[in-house]
Amino acid sequence: MTSIARIPDTSKKRVVIVGVGFAGLRLARSLSSRNFQVILIDKNNYHQFQPLLYQVATSGLEPAAIAFPLRKIFQNKKHIHFRVAKFLAVDQDMNCILTSIGSIQYDYLVLATGVKPNYFGNRNIEKYALSMKAVSDAIYIRNSILENFEKALSADTEEEIALMNIVIVGGGPTGVELAGAIAEMRKFILPKDYPELDFNKMEIYLMEGANRLLGDMSLKASERSKLFLENMGVKVRLKTIVKEYDGNIVLLDDGTSVRSEILLWAAGIKACEVKGLASDTYGKGGRIVVDEINKVQGTTNIFAIGDIAIMISEKYPAGHPQVAQPAIQQGLQLSKNLKRLQRSRPLIPFRYAEKGSLATVGRNRAVADLPFGSFSGFWAWILWLFVHLMSLVGKKNRLFVFINWSLSYFTYDQSFRLMIKPKTRESP
Amino acid sequence: MTSIARIPDTSKKRVVIVGVGFAGLRLARSLSSRNFQVILIDKNNYHQFQPLLYQVATSGLEPAAIAFPLRKIFQNKKHIHFRVAKFLAVDQDMNCILTSIGSIQYDYLVLATGVKPNYFGNRNIEKYALSMKAVSDAIYIRNSILENFEKALSADTEEEIALMNIVIVGGGPTGVELAGAIAEMRKFILPKDYPELDFNKMEIYLMEGANRLLGDMSLKASERSKLFLENMGVKVRLKTIVKEYDGNIVLLDDGTSVRSEILLWAAGIKACEVKGLASDTYGKGGRIVVDEINKVQGTTNIFAIGDIAIMISEKYPAGHPQVAQPAIQQGLQLSKNLKRLQRSRPLIPFRYAEKGSLATVGRNRAVADLPFGSFSGFWAWILWLFVHLMSLVGKKNRLFVFINWSLSYFTYDQSFRLMIKPKTRESP
Repeated sequence: MTSIARIPDTSKKRVVIVGVGFAGLRLARSLSSRNFQVILIDKNNYHQFQPLLYQVATSGLEPAAIAFPLRKIFQNKKHIHFRVAKFLAVDQDMNCILTSIGSIQYDYLVLATGVKPNYFGNRNIEKYALSMKAVSDAIYIRNSILENFEKALSADTEEEIALMNIVIVGGGPTGVELAGAIAEMRKFILPKDYPELDFNKMEIYLMEGANRLLGDMSLKASERSKLFLENMGVKVRLKTIVKEYDGNIVLLDDGTSVRSEILLWAAGIKACEVKGLASDTYGKGGRIVVDEINKVQGTTNIFAIGDIAIMISEKYPAGHPQVAQPAIQQGLQLSKNLKRLQRSRPLIPFRYAEKGSLATVGRNRAVADLPFGSFSGFWAWILWLFVHLMSLVGKKNRLFVFINWSLSYFTYDQSFRLMIKPKTRESP
Repeated sequence: MTSIARIPDTSKKRVVIVGVGFAGLRLARSLSSRNFQVILIDKNNYHQFQPLLYQVATSGLEPAAIAFPLRKIFQNKKHIHFRVAKFLAVDQDMNCILTSIGSIQYDYLVLATGVKPNYFGNRNIEKYALSMKAVSDAIYIRNSILENFEKALSADTEEEIALMNIVIVGGGPTGVELAGAIAEMRKFILPKDYPELDFNKMEIYLMEGANRLLGDMSLKASERSKLFLENMGVKVRLKTIVKEYDGNIVLLDDGTSVRSEILLWAAGIKACEVKGLASDTYGKGGRIVVDEINKVQGTTNIFAIGDIAIMISEKYPAGHPQVAQPAIQQGLQLSKNLKRLQRSRPLIPFRYAEKGSLATVGRNRAVADLPFGSFSGFWAWILWLFVHLMSLVGKKNRLFVFINWSLSYFTYDQSFRLMIKPKTRESP
């Protein structure tokens, strides 16, 4: 095994995990020092809690509240070596991966790099739309929205409408939650911050190609979420596809258009590309085809877990839903199977234990599909709050999010409407 | 009076305030709606609490904890109109200022744009050193420090020293507080986060040109702060001037050099330039010369307050110290004088009420010069905590900073070591 600076050669099997989202994090935390040396790489030095990105984008939470430094998580685990690095490719012949800090050999490789936005080949939408897969995206959306309201103050009427309008594309949980949060900003915050603007002119659109919102949830959840959003003044357009966008005019498939300088794209995802795998390894949406133990098809020691993997089964002919729970469960299961592999015990196929789905629309309003039934409203919202709070990494993050949510709830305020501009060494 | 979009013409006198730091904020909050229409401009949409920037730079606080959205402060003040804009120049003949959103006429103009780093003409230091005058600077310093430790993990020995070393130039409060905070990171945080690095190799230097630290404070404060820092392992070099820096080698005036990829520049400030004033208006350090009521020399309706102004008096022949207290007091005094001006009452000359100086060096360690005497250690530190906590704008910021400080104190931890990278529309 070639050596990497400051990572000792040991007799233990080395597991290299690429990507520390829900799947990679769960796996890393579950691999014991007795059996493995673990090398983790990620382009960020923190784990981000994606389900709450939309609250960062809408000024409800600070970035730090949903990001947790990885070095802190692994401080006392000497067998885990974390490196900030970009993953470039797999070299199967050499059993190593290529990264921005050099090549790293593995005994077992686990790919957990997740997904990125899918613009379905439309270059203009890719160029002008805003998507939200990372904390930095969410900060950028926040800055863009606030900047547009500042600009609207000096704009003439036609321009003003475009600056105030917000179009969200994609009626999945992300789109629904964004639409709800923005509708609440319009109701509770923006008129107080910008008394000089006429908020009757501001429209929030949620465009969905299918005939219902939250397509992965129950019919009841779809109906209730649409009703909630419409009560909050969101214009929900079903069976509507965005054809083109130039940064100002959103062109729809029925030939009509709306003006908006902000188009939030939550309409599709595809797997992050992994170079160095056989071409028949990629399934629908670019996802990597894995067997029941998350082993990549046609390989002996490469695994894929979480959103990037597609495991086709009778119950899930299109793979598992690309959300947190399957990722976490796959990470945990793979840790057990790697241990069994070491001891030459039979491996246990992954079985997804559905815990249900939740989506929130706003204050006191959420929809829930649980194994025993569907419900919506206040108690669904309380459940949503509880589940998300307890899923955050770190007691301090939990405390801060809890205080924030409590203060926002009682004051009808969101205090983080700061446009903190980026600064880079090149352009100070 | 020419009209600006969405700002009504009134019969009231219009006060235009440029810059919402300590001075501009205090003035704006004190001008009553009965007498004035107020237009505030700033390049940011938030007020930043500069005395705690160093804690953002060293991962102790989140940016949002020390930044407060201006629109929230002025939500219920209909006579105050805030605009995010860049100030370009004064046009004295037209009684207007030029900004990035057009020209704005004034009856009274108040310049409160503060200061920026002074590199004394050294282009290389300006290019490679990091300075800290804004929240975005502090985030950039944090990212740079953390990035260097990540890089050090894959570096060979000589490089590693340069990546770990940190040189701070300037022994004023900013330099002393930065040095102390970084020394605490080295002691409590970094060895746990980077067990693979040898922190005996890391040196923290504090370079000061004069023969003592904290030159504006008492001799006792200078001595104690030096002692505190040296006990924490900081190499304090007095009578030492940095001559040159290329991003790696710091060349000193005695011909010796040290290696460091991080040079934090806190060695000098100069006033932000204001175009459109007579050339004899600028005093030492580019500060604008004002009379006893903060009126700019040679003008009738232009004022300057805070760090940018220099008011020479018998007691302060070099002007007031460029810290928060004179700025706040000048803002308050000017609000009273503008009201008196309106009523043709005699104006009251500004008298600085010294409240004392504080600087913190680390856990349980600070120095204090108060009107009745100087002291240092634990109680000075408690006083420092209390004063800074109560000076923050916003109850929520106070609460969050208090919780953070309490948690850090008892856990010896700083949880915000996140490298959240900037993202711009141009380079996503």
